[in-house]
Amino acid sequence: MSWQLTAADLPDLARGATLLGTGGGGDPYIGSKLVEQALGAGSITVLDPGDPADLPDDAFVIPTAQMGAPTVMIEKIPAGTEPTLALRTLEEHLGRTADATMPIECGGINSMIPFVVAAETGLPVVDADGMGRAFPELSMETFAVYGVHGSPLALAGERGEKIVIDTGDDDRQLEWLARAVTIRLGGVGHIAEYAMSGADVRRTAVPRTISMALSLGRAIRIAREDKRSPFDAIQKVLAPTLYHHVVDLFEGKIVDVERRTTEGFARGRVRIAPTGSGAELEISFQNENLTAHRDGELLAIVPDLICVLDHETAEPITTERLRYGQRVRVLGISTPDLMRTPEALVTFGPVAFGLSEDFVPVERIARTAGAAL
Amino acid sequence: MSWQLTAADLPDLARGATLLGTGGGGDPYIGSKLVEQALGAGSITVLDPGDPADLPDDAFVIPTAQMGAPTVMIEKIPAGTEPTLALRTLEEHLGRTADATMPIECGGINSMIPFVVAAETGLPVVDADGMGRAFPELSMETFAVYGVHGSPLALAGERGEKIVIDTGDDDRQLEWLARAVTIRLGGVGHIAEYAMSGADVRRTAVPRTISMALSLGRAIRIAREDKRSPFDAIQKVLAPTLYHHVVDLFEGKIVDVERRTTEGFARGRVRIAPTGSGAELEISFQNENLTAHRDGELLAIVPDLICVLDHETAEPITTERLRYGQRVRVLGISTPDLMRTPEALVTFGPVAFGLSEDFVPVERIARTAGAAL
Repeated sequence: MSWQLTAADLPDLARGATLLGTGGGGDPYIGSKLVEQALGAGSITVLDPGDPADLPDDAFVIPTAQMGAPTVMIEKIPAGTEPTLALRTLEEHLGRTADATMPIECGGINSMIPFVVAAETGLPVVDADGMGRAFPELSMETFAVYGVHGSPLALAGERGEKIVIDTGDDDRQLEWLARAVTIRLGGVGHIAEYAMSGADVRRTAVPRTISMALSLGRAIRIAREDKRSPFDAIQKVLAPTLYHHVVDLFEGKIVDVERRTTEGFARGRVRIAPTGSGAELEISFQNENLTAHRDGELLAIVPDLICVLDHETAEPITTERLRYGQRVRVLGISTPDLMRTPEALVTFGPVAFGLSEDFVPVERIARTAGAAL
Repeated sequence: MSWQLTAADLPDLARGATLLGTGGGGDPYIGSKLVEQALGAGSITVLDPGDPADLPDDAFVIPTAQMGAPTVMIEKIPAGTEPTLALRTLEEHLGRTADATMPIECGGINSMIPFVVAAETGLPVVDADGMGRAFPELSMETFAVYGVHGSPLALAGERGEKIVIDTGDDDRQLEWLARAVTIRLGGVGHIAEYAMSGADVRRTAVPRTISMALSLGRAIRIAREDKRSPFDAIQKVLAPTLYHHVVDLFEGKIVDVERRTTEGFARGRVRIAPTGSGAELEISFQNENLTAHRDGELLAIVPDLICVLDHETAEPITTERLRYGQRVRVLGISTPDLMRTPEALVTFGPVAFGLSEDFVPVERIARTAGAAL
């Protein structure tokens, strides 16, 4: 059943989306301010992708997102009209108007962009996405894994530039060309792509990730207010979802952060020492956290979620905010089955990041090690 | 009146287009081979832009060209179908089919690209262009100077990629974004842009530059065969055209070539020593030749043509073929009046290349110095 999102929900949604960003995805805070500004006292209808009354098979959905270096957003706040221009450009190109928009990435800032569009246009937002988290490239989509490709993509710039790119089934080439344009637009562009039917959403998207992000953010906040453990609250929220395994990977103090920006990505690693004696935890990242190892032993690996949180408040910490001396707790969260199939792992599993290790579900490693939360 | 171009004309057209390339524009030879292959024993109709019977006011013309580093073409020969794909993509975007194609640049390889399209589609080619020579950026167009802008531009890649870019009236931004895509397509892309009516062609284009290039190439060849001076032949061809001043700037031996590739451009200078004693000639270039100085004194400056030719055969020599020891003759050729207006000079005059000198017509400098051919 559909539900209404209001401005009051935005801080919780932002917190939950940061957690699902697994260290990357860009800061949803600026995005939430754009939604707030466009929405005022109104509300946005959020459609349940599992309910054909909300989203008929022949509904036409155009997802919207931001592309580019999230760090640019902090210094260069977009006008806010670009994502809608991208949607309108794709509508014009396809000769068909959208019935709804949808995120292509539920983690980080891209959780917010469809709501900016919705607040401006009155369109509803489908409660689903194509990553189930954040990933560094816009071709890393369950949509594409299951046959819905990004082309044609519409890209809009802050000076009203409109670009349409069509690379057929080649989503990597689409990403490659769109990113070149984005760089020349000043580092950030807004896009509309992966246009699809309601039936395609049901078949290819990760469902209910927006309501899950909102529930996560809300549960963390309420637990803090009630002086309960926000980590227990996270587990309770996720238990009935497609992300039901939550593994307590580590708790400790950050002792080293190594970070370099290469080819537009923030790559590096963070080392966390235990409170007492024992082996350190090492997390590697490329925008998002990719692997967690203790003493050379793999604890979790992409596409499972590796989330670094403040050890008391459970506030999620992005890779660019990692600092020496922070006391953190690291969770491993299982991703839905449709993100773990062989074809999905080719697109956004370890091999897609040049890692030599195979994917092993975080809950299986935990069972062996007896470390489940 | 219209005329027919056949494969037998291509070597002469290539020679003339190289001369009009003023050192740049890319080698038309590979382009002429693509035309030959597509044309076979057929012919292409070339329309006189001055004749409304050939080109009615409401005719719809879509110019076609190649964008990118001409040096790449030598190693990476295009399939030949990209320029037509670019034209078809723009037709589809605009919802209108073209009645003719046209060059946007008559110097260098872009003299040939519309003929590749014409040979494949059966469309006629308008005998005109928007540069009257070659320039390094595709925004340096008489079309744009007189109000016909490049947007929307369609760009096609060799793997069937289709890109449409619309930056409104901002042709520099269009160039900037299209070049980024071109670089990621491997250095060369094919484009269709500056779509316009027959009336707009008459108002904004440099007329009869293709027939002029063909006449130049043919006259040089026949003079050689007849053991007459090809330099006299060049002057005779140009006298009745809009390019009627031909100034003999210098004759001598190349003693130094300095060349560096920066930001995708071949920039540098060449020094030529006289046969006897006296001051050297120095030519600066950015893909195309920009200025000619002798002893610090300006002899010719962009947008007038500075052409370096073999001292005997009058074969035009591009900047990448300049070599120590070559014996050359350098001509300055006046550009048409519509390329010398204040608004035209802002777009492709000295200031557009960051030069501090003002434009002075080559024939006026020559009159002062008494050096006319």
